[in-house]
Amino acid sequence: MVKSPGSQLDRTFAALVDPTRRAILMRLEQEGSISVGELARPFAIKLPAVMKHLDVLGAAGLVTRSKQGRTVAVRLAPDPMKEAMDWLRRYERFWSARLDRLVAYAEAQEAKAGTMKAQEDA
Amino acid sequence: MVKSPGSQLDRTFAALVDPTRRAILMRLEQEGSISVGELARPFAIKLPAVMKHLDVLGAAGLVTRSKQGRTVAVRLAPDPMKEAMDWLRRYERFWSARLDRLVAYAEAQEAKAGTMKAQEDA
Repeated sequence: MVKSPGSQLDRTFAALVDPTRRAILMRLEQEGSISVGELARPFAIKLPAVMKHLDVLGAAGLVTRSKQGRTVAVRLAPDPMKEAMDWLRRYERFWSARLDRLVAYAEAQEAKAGTMKAQEDA
Repeated sequence: MVKSPGSQLDRTFAALVDPTRRAILMRLEQEGSISVGELARPFAIKLPAVMKHLDVLGAAGLVTRSKQGRTVAVRLAPDPMKEAMDWLRRYERFWSARLDRLVAYAEAQEAKAGTMKAQEDA
């Protein structure tokens, strides 16, 4: 099967669009491995709806599920999110450029205040 | 209007799902400001399709458009992507933990090779 180069990124970002799926990933970030029942408990949606979200996350490779006796354990698979973060990182220079300008402005203001103080003191 | 807390993130990730929209953002990262016509040229899709993608990007606050005479200039608005990157950053420890283990393994291998060499030399 030939995969188009963007397809994993497509699936990763699509999985992250939904706030419930992001909340599931955040919970798994804390918990490591957790049963589907435990995972579903805090949500105001029914178990089948949670299962559907887990299907999307599973298809995107962001969670794995394994049967442990009578329960299904869900585990975070964070690797695909690295590619998404690396993709976003190319825009980092815009934010750091803005921060640089802010620091330069603050320093200029400080220097000006220092000059005024020196003139007052003279 | 009360905005649900996830809504900007929802729009940002939704905008990033489509490879054409990601390609537009990457082009704008290089070009700064560019006309819609110029922007559309390298794509195998028609101008109205590009305009639709620009609508999605505009609604997510990722591009701004301004009329300059007879052309429309498109400019990158990278700020919302910072929130998306910050969201993904919480998973960074998983990747750096893996890197730490890899470094530890490489160092252990190196130490072992060193011990073997010392024993051979003795």
